[in-house]
Amino acid sequence: MNSSKAPDFGRPHSPEWVIMVVSRDAQGKPNVMPAGWGMHCSGSPPYMAVSIGYGRYTYRCIHDTGEFVFAWAGEGQAQLVEQTGSTSGRDINKFEEFNIASSEPTVVNVPLLDGAASNLECRLVHEYESGDHAIFVGEVVASHQPEPPIRRLFNFERTYMVAVAEEPS
Amino acid sequence: MNSSKAPDFGRPHSPEWVIMVVSRDAQGKPNVMPAGWGMHCSGSPPYMAVSIGYGRYTYRCIHDTGEFVFAWAGEGQAQLVEQTGSTSGRDINKFEEFNIASSEPTVVNVPLLDGAASNLECRLVHEYESGDHAIFVGEVVASHQPEPPIRRLFNFERTYMVAVAEEPS
Repeated sequence: MNSSKAPDFGRPHSPEWVIMVVSRDAQGKPNVMPAGWGMHCSGSPPYMAVSIGYGRYTYRCIHDTGEFVFAWAGEGQAQLVEQTGSTSGRDINKFEEFNIASSEPTVVNVPLLDGAASNLECRLVHEYESGDHAIFVGEVVASHQPEPPIRRLFNFERTYMVAVAEEPS
Repeated sequence: MNSSKAPDFGRPHSPEWVIMVVSRDAQGKPNVMPAGWGMHCSGSPPYMAVSIGYGRYTYRCIHDTGEFVFAWAGEGQAQLVEQTGSTSGRDINKFEEFNIASSEPTVVNVPLLDGAASNLECRLVHEYESGDHAIFVGEVVASHQPEPPIRRLFNFERTYMVAVAEEPS
């Protein structure tokens, strides 16, 4: 057993799912960032949580507008994850810069991400402090799934692939 | 696009990682439940979050004692996930009933789960309300990884397997 009393998470844990967090700033500019730290957090009502660092542009967007779209990254979005994860909405409009295709939402005022495995429109119900991140808890007010279905993308130590069950050897 | 304004999460999303949440009740009886709804939520200090339904025995344990172990389920623990997920610590001592092997923690008073991919000892820093679940935020005060490493288990629609990147076809 390799133990540590230093505060750490142990070795990196792969694979990790990839969430595309879509939002708008107070002036209406849309933005999207990839995140790994998100989860379901209530069944009824349906809530999703995502942890966003206080320094992120997305933090300011969700904090100011109270809305976001929780999109599970889809199979064809590996390049988009890299592009949107290595730039900041402070400097550019990622939707314009990377020609990101989007669709109209039905409830909130945040675009849906074409090509995602799922788009969950969320209205902020709680913003909780959590160390160097905020936990945003959103109520799912509308959900959209592509037909035919698109599989989710996972982060295998910075390679973005679909995760399948290992075949018995 | 298959859209819904009814509050739902869309189709089930597989695979989902599996967290074994270990705790003790106020009388000291140890317990463990599998959960899928957990995430990292701070880098510095290192925090982990897990969502636990208010009706769960584990809810009462963490609420009362302020401690838990966040263990990533390991490759050989599929049966243990089934066993501990279909029973309640209200009725039995799962560690005795299922002969669960454990090790001594170094900081908190909650046993470590042998065979897990990682054991993170957590001290509760926040309990947040989130619909029908509480979000417990714990600071990682010690971490333990087995040598040789054990891979994480994922939930593929109730079949528990290791998740690997899909080979290009």
